[in-house]
Amino acid sequence: MREELERLVELDREKKIVAHIGALLGWDQETGMPEKAVDERSEQLAMIQGLAHAKAVRPEIGELLSKLGSTSESPLGDPELAADERAFLRVLRRAYDRDTKLSADLVEEMARTTSLVQPAWVKARKEDDFASFAPHLEKILGLERRVATCLGPGKPPYDVLLDLYEPGSTEASIAQVFSRLRGDLVKILGKIKSRAQVDDSFLHEAIGEGRQRAVSDWLMDVLAFDRSRGRLDISAHPFTTTLGSDDVRITTRYLENFIPSSMFSTMHETGHALYELGLAPGASFAGTELAEAASMAIHESQSRMWENMVGRGEAFWKGHFHKLVDLVSPTWDGLGREDFLRAVNKVEPSQIRTDADEVTYGLHIILRFELEADLISGRLAVKDLPKAWNAKTRELLGIEVRDDAHGCLQDVHWSAALFGYFPSYSLGNLYAAQFWEAMRKDLPDIDARIEAGDTASLLAWLRDRIHKAGGSYLPGELVERVTGHALDPSHFVSYLDRKYARVYGY
Amino acid sequence: MREELERLVELDREKKIVAHIGALLGWDQETGMPEKAVDERSEQLAMIQGLAHAKAVRPEIGELLSKLGSTSESPLGDPELAADERAFLRVLRRAYDRDTKLSADLVEEMARTTSLVQPAWVKARKEDDFASFAPHLEKILGLERRVATCLGPGKPPYDVLLDLYEPGSTEASIAQVFSRLRGDLVKILGKIKSRAQVDDSFLHEAIGEGRQRAVSDWLMDVLAFDRSRGRLDISAHPFTTTLGSDDVRITTRYLENFIPSSMFSTMHETGHALYELGLAPGASFAGTELAEAASMAIHESQSRMWENMVGRGEAFWKGHFHKLVDLVSPTWDGLGREDFLRAVNKVEPSQIRTDADEVTYGLHIILRFELEADLISGRLAVKDLPKAWNAKTRELLGIEVRDDAHGCLQDVHWSAALFGYFPSYSLGNLYAAQFWEAMRKDLPDIDARIEAGDTASLLAWLRDRIHKAGGSYLPGELVERVTGHALDPSHFVSYLDRKYARVYGY
Repeated sequence: MREELERLVELDREKKIVAHIGALLGWDQETGMPEKAVDERSEQLAMIQGLAHAKAVRPEIGELLSKLGSTSESPLGDPELAADERAFLRVLRRAYDRDTKLSADLVEEMARTTSLVQPAWVKARKEDDFASFAPHLEKILGLERRVATCLGPGKPPYDVLLDLYEPGSTEASIAQVFSRLRGDLVKILGKIKSRAQVDDSFLHEAIGEGRQRAVSDWLMDVLAFDRSRGRLDISAHPFTTTLGSDDVRITTRYLENFIPSSMFSTMHETGHALYELGLAPGASFAGTELAEAASMAIHESQSRMWENMVGRGEAFWKGHFHKLVDLVSPTWDGLGREDFLRAVNKVEPSQIRTDADEVTYGLHIILRFELEADLISGRLAVKDLPKAWNAKTRELLGIEVRDDAHGCLQDVHWSAALFGYFPSYSLGNLYAAQFWEAMRKDLPDIDARIEAGDTASLLAWLRDRIHKAGGSYLPGELVERVTGHALDPSHFVSYLDRKYARVYGY
Repeated sequence: MREELERLVELDREKKIVAHIGALLGWDQETGMPEKAVDERSEQLAMIQGLAHAKAVRPEIGELLSKLGSTSESPLGDPELAADERAFLRVLRRAYDRDTKLSADLVEEMARTTSLVQPAWVKARKEDDFASFAPHLEKILGLERRVATCLGPGKPPYDVLLDLYEPGSTEASIAQVFSRLRGDLVKILGKIKSRAQVDDSFLHEAIGEGRQRAVSDWLMDVLAFDRSRGRLDISAHPFTTTLGSDDVRITTRYLENFIPSSMFSTMHETGHALYELGLAPGASFAGTELAEAASMAIHESQSRMWENMVGRGEAFWKGHFHKLVDLVSPTWDGLGREDFLRAVNKVEPSQIRTDADEVTYGLHIILRFELEADLISGRLAVKDLPKAWNAKTRELLGIEVRDDAHGCLQDVHWSAALFGYFPSYSLGNLYAAQFWEAMRKDLPDIDARIEAGDTASLLAWLRDRIHKAGGSYLPGELVERVTGHALDPSHFVSYLDRKYARVYGY
């Protein structure tokens, strides 16, 4: 490897060590930090973030990138370099541009603003008071537009923001995918609504934390989560965080009267963790930016696959339902597998995105995508957001929004300046279905394997095709390589249609 | 406050934020880190230690100290400054000198050597092979002498090392205290040996982790450990660590067949934590070096007081024994309080320091103090250590050492280059007894209070007299202020004599 590249790897690894220290501070804050430590913790986080920024913008990185021929326009650099070296230059150039193009002033103003807006949003949601939140949202929008202008001068601002989460995507490319998806989801929802609703009342029977924890531990084992490289804890909102290539931690939460919350959170986060633990673009690039996920949506494809395609699938429970009943005994003694499977796949339009099933979830995301694009472009005024939200909910989900707290104030994302993030959730489902179909061609007996407790075959396939590449490919390149064609929502739609035809008998 | 002082406070706070981040990395490693994360964690720790060092040796600190008149010889600085300001300058000058006088080379060589010697010691102890450890110990001794020469050129090396842990102490000052202590301990031990041994067999009955945890939680509550500012976890060796002025964490361990291990570890570490949580030398100095313990021995006085004087005392169990029996039920149903109290105060010379009772513990320390002083000075050759150790064990404790693994290889300290640390343990007991006696004059009804569950009175007294001052006084100054006279082992000796006359009926 050329000397300049070796030095770049070294500089990048240092940056990542700092990021992992920050991840520990964050993990601890969510899982077990004593409550009064919060002020000091924010000072500790600020110091680490400052250090991370200083390491990320060292001019030496820019100089080395230039020497190796990597520019913002042509990030892959010198064509004589090896493919993995060029991929490394691309992700590094991308990160360096992102970290250096924003002025320190703007970064600071954004940090200050979001930290003020956060409690304002909590209060507004609690009091169902959109008017009090509106000026804050205006301010965030102004900052987001400024960020977009710094990062991509002359480009449509929302395109620049989308690219932060899903490299290579634009409003137009996502709109094209979502417009096909939208009609198909509405159609499936219509068929489901024409049938009798399933009974999931037994899912609400009380099951203590001890038994729920035993179920989560068992599920992690079945999915082959290596505990010598990670752990499970409890937090208010489940998450996955990476403290090192051999230290990936997940959390779940135990709701006494709804065990599916912990079960499927655990499988979801395990999916994220398996991806993180499988990132391996060659030893030369271990611990660098290349050993990171291809995108947020690709990440989500892994969590959704294990949660939904495996964890809410027939094959899995054919082989594992008896063990689940043992673990929660006596609560579900005598319950049938088919009843369980139908119940955990119940579809019902509701106001809250995070409670949504696999069909309506996509509609929640399309709604947010369309509204945030309009907000950023200015086509939609902040004051008109509640009306627009409620109208779109009626149109897409066929239900009325109770109030703004259950409507346009429900999500944290906009108050946290995460415009452009929402589409990743839905793209994740689409990627998952497309990968799933490709996998079934390679492993035609996958159902029998999963039923027999062999999840290792699926994991090995994912490791080989998706995980190990890390950030070597843009998401669009990756889906082409793995499945032979560009992202196409029809795979997800037929997966849903097959599944719900069976669940609802239409 | 003068501008230079304000800036010094700011610089010092930054240093401490870094130290607290490092403490989290260390805490996590001992309590829950996945095992394969160990290599990456050491890189994270190295980065934080590097940052801490860089913050500690900033020339600006030295310049500001000089401007304020603080020198190595006259650290308190400008006499016109307020008392707390001068105390701050003293602790800061002390830290700055310590951190700047050692060359980067020496620090690095020490880190490299101890990290190599550590596993060599583990292996030597496991295989009872002192010969293989001897060259490592030689190397550590050489480095310790170099450290001493850098920090205190011209001074006796062991004095310089002792001063690192117990500021103001010397070999002569400690030898004077220990020589009086030694004879008295041997005398008490003789009286105990003349009586029938107590029966503590019931302490070895199995009690599950759940019940032991309930006992530890209860003890922390009784001792008023504020859980919003700390927590309890499990680790192989119990410890206390400070992640912030509002985040002090303790650990314990649960041995199924010996509940006293978790009970008294929890009380011991709670004592350390209460001290840390009480450090409060005024708001201007919050989060600085002045808000740290006066010394290791003063720290130990707090842990030992809660563990032994309270936790192994009659008053406490008069009021709390029934609750303990409830919590471990049915294991000790029917057990009498007097039997329990005698059992947890059983005295028996043994080879291992960490298993020692209150009487023989001091003899273990005196042995180590005398031997390490001789090793540093060169009066004792490394090759002669085992013989010297075994002879001194015979002389002080009246027992034979089984082998070097249970003899001179038993402790981690020397392999970790902690020469000068051992005396702090015993000084802690002496300070504790002297403080305890002073407290009893102020609170003559303390026994009745403790029996009634009022530990707050004792804590308030400790807070006011010892904790809040932080590092404002040298340990020698502190004991004078609190008790009216210099450290005197007779308080500890009469405390022991009174207690064991009752336990053993002599």
